Amino acid sequence: MIYFDNSATTKPKKEVLDTFYKVAENYFGNPSSVHHLGLQAENLLSQARNQIATLLKTDEQEIIFTSGGTEGNNFIIKGVAEKYRNRGHHMITTMIEHPSVLNTCIQLENNGFDVTYLPVDETGRVRVEDVKRALRKDTILVSIMHVNNEIGSVQPIAKIGELLKNHPKTLFHVDHVQGVTKVPLDFHESNVDFASISSHKFHGLKGTGAIYIRKGLKLAPLLAGGGQERGFRSGTENLAGIVAMAKALRLGMLDYEAKIDTMMDVRDFLINELQLIEGVTMNTPKQNTSPHIINFSVQGFKAEVLVHELEQHGLYVSTTSACSSRTNEPSRTILAMGLGEERATTSIRISLSFDNTMEEAKQAVAIIKQSIKNLKPVMRG
Amino acid sequence: MIYFDNSATTKPKKEVLDTFYKVAENYFGNPSSVHHLGLQAENLLSQARNQIATLLKTDEQEIIFTSGGTEGNNFIIKGVAEKYRNRGHHMITTMIEHPSVLNTCIQLENNGFDVTYLPVDETGRVRVEDVKRALRKDTILVSIMHVNNEIGSVQPIAKIGELLKNHPKTLFHVDHVQGVTKVPLDFHESNVDFASISSHKFHGLKGTGAIYIRKGLKLAPLLAGGGQERGFRSGTENLAGIVAMAKALRLGMLDYEAKIDTMMDVRDFLINELQLIEGVTMNTPKQNTSPHIINFSVQGFKAEVLVHELEQHGLYVSTTSACSSRTNEPSRTILAMGLGEERATTSIRISLSFDNTMEEAKQAVAIIKQSIKNLKPVMRG
Repeated sequence: MIYFDNSATTKPKKEVLDTFYKVAENYFGNPSSVHHLGLQAENLLSQARNQIATLLKTDEQEIIFTSGGTEGNNFIIKGVAEKYRNRGHHMITTMIEHPSVLNTCIQLENNGFDVTYLPVDETGRVRVEDVKRALRKDTILVSIMHVNNEIGSVQPIAKIGELLKNHPKTLFHVDHVQGVTKVPLDFHESNVDFASISSHKFHGLKGTGAIYIRKGLKLAPLLAGGGQERGFRSGTENLAGIVAMAKALRLGMLDYEAKIDTMMDVRDFLINELQLIEGVTMNTPKQNTSPHIINFSVQGFKAEVLVHELEQHGLYVSTTSACSSRTNEPSRTILAMGLGEERATTSIRISLSFDNTMEEAKQAVAIIKQSIKNLKPVMRG
Repeated sequence: MIYFDNSATTKPKKEVLDTFYKVAENYFGNPSSVHHLGLQAENLLSQARNQIATLLKTDEQEIIFTSGGTEGNNFIIKGVAEKYRNRGHHMITTMIEHPSVLNTCIQLENNGFDVTYLPVDETGRVRVEDVKRALRKDTILVSIMHVNNEIGSVQPIAKIGELLKNHPKTLFHVDHVQGVTKVPLDFHESNVDFASISSHKFHGLKGTGAIYIRKGLKLAPLLAGGGQERGFRSGTENLAGIVAMAKALRLGMLDYEAKIDTMMDVRDFLINELQLIEGVTMNTPKQNTSPHIINFSVQGFKAEVLVHELEQHGLYVSTTSACSSRTNEPSRTILAMGLGEERATTSIRISLSFDNTMEEAKQAVAIIKQSIKNLKPVMRG
């Protein structure tokens, strides 16, 4: 099996799963309990927070644990809406955000908010000048992803952060789910106020994630209750999942420069080889792109049909993002890039992890070539 | 170690943890992916849903997975508020709800809703006639817990459900977190519209829970996004946690009648023995009470001091609920019962699991007696 669908989810590392098991078995106390079992759990929680904060170059108190990327994005956007609505009712985002951002914005529109959805250029990047033009006196939030989940384009976060320095009443949220461990981002340096990550995208476990909240900022809780996470996010902490996430993040960022170099070699090999195949066009841009996502279209081949043929040969890739793939809709990102309906319905996403090898890439190219050949008579129908 | 703090959290069963490990390792695909790994994951998800639905006597499509009890309660109450606010802005709850209900209601009050907090009688039960009197034309939700988490009183859910049959525009939410597996509740028979459960309260894992939504009812999503869980709750499913929850629930409900009988024997023994100790008064009522929670006050002994003394001897209990225990506040439930400040600050909660034995209960009584003796000179100061 060649698993090239790591932007949908990754296989948890054995060490990470073992950590989960150990913590769940031996430290099952509720961190809020006053007795020793509670304190033990609380100490472990604090260690994990410290480790994650250090790896993300933030302060401990800037890290709040969640159940994953979708909760993180909902929490930040809805939390800002509720907390700062006296300041204004306008938000800015892009047309290529993850559904957990887009559909949250749509929900807020139904609740009296006004949202500007910025277009992107033909490389899948939002223009900083578009952000600037869209800013209004009542803009309370700009929410822009770091790495696009469909084509891998990297957004100009630092430049937008710089721009927003002149707009102290406008907060800045970055969906960092696809970026973390693959495309580093210094939240403080980039003037980011809020960011979200999800553990299962970097070989951690599903059901755990974290958000970064810049020190001093407030946010209305999405989950009100017992006051865990300093009142930001109530609910008994998933301690084993959190400690496992800290481990996954540490392993992910260990020697990451060397790992990213290897990943880029694999990516470049794939891009070069795929481009030689008749009918293949790259949707992933040449520059400002992540090391792990390659998106291409194969003219005349409906993406879903090709995905199924590829898996017959042991190669797992995806059509659009996992969240949208069941709906069979054309890729929103590719449509927003202005590449047209045909490219958007024939697009295939390869997404690598640090564990993928050049050998797998070679096999994958052979499988893709063969699958296109196999399907051709059918497609010509 | 004698662990009598099972209402705070339970130790996950080994079989449950093993199930988690196996699923996380072997079925790591994203259930939304179109390829085989996704379908495998989706099938497993569907099996778990089916199993849980059967155990709870509901339909499959009435079960939605969450990250736990706090998310479930927030989701239902805020979801009703958003979806049905055109119908009215009034809600009814009680003064003894879990903080995830109470603080959600307070958050809604800050957002234009009007909430009635009903008192309870001296046994910690809400009066059905009080609910009836509080109902208004614009009441969109009644939210009442099944089993109180501090003293174990069981609320008259079926009677309130019956009453609400005459109020079809008022929805009925039951926080079933402390009830599930210990005090059965048939949602359909009791005319319940929404209910929430949490896996780690019945030897499952933290970070997983479920809600019941009566067929045909709508709810605004708390987590918007990729449209998982039929659009009710987006976010990549914590499949391993969900399958582990199905296992924990099945094990929990296996022979539960016999297990509850044993549990009641242990409880009754504890109550009888504890009542004989000088200065001990029971806060848990004699009737309409759960088999697993025993709450008592020891005159003159600050609860926290006694809890720490007990743990020195290997007995783990709690002061108030885990969520409130760190704040050192008097028990809200005991105050609401009108038992006074002294009883509310000296109250100890024992909460059993099916795994606790009579032998443990005997040891516990001896430890409690000895600890009170040890502390007496200190307390007299």
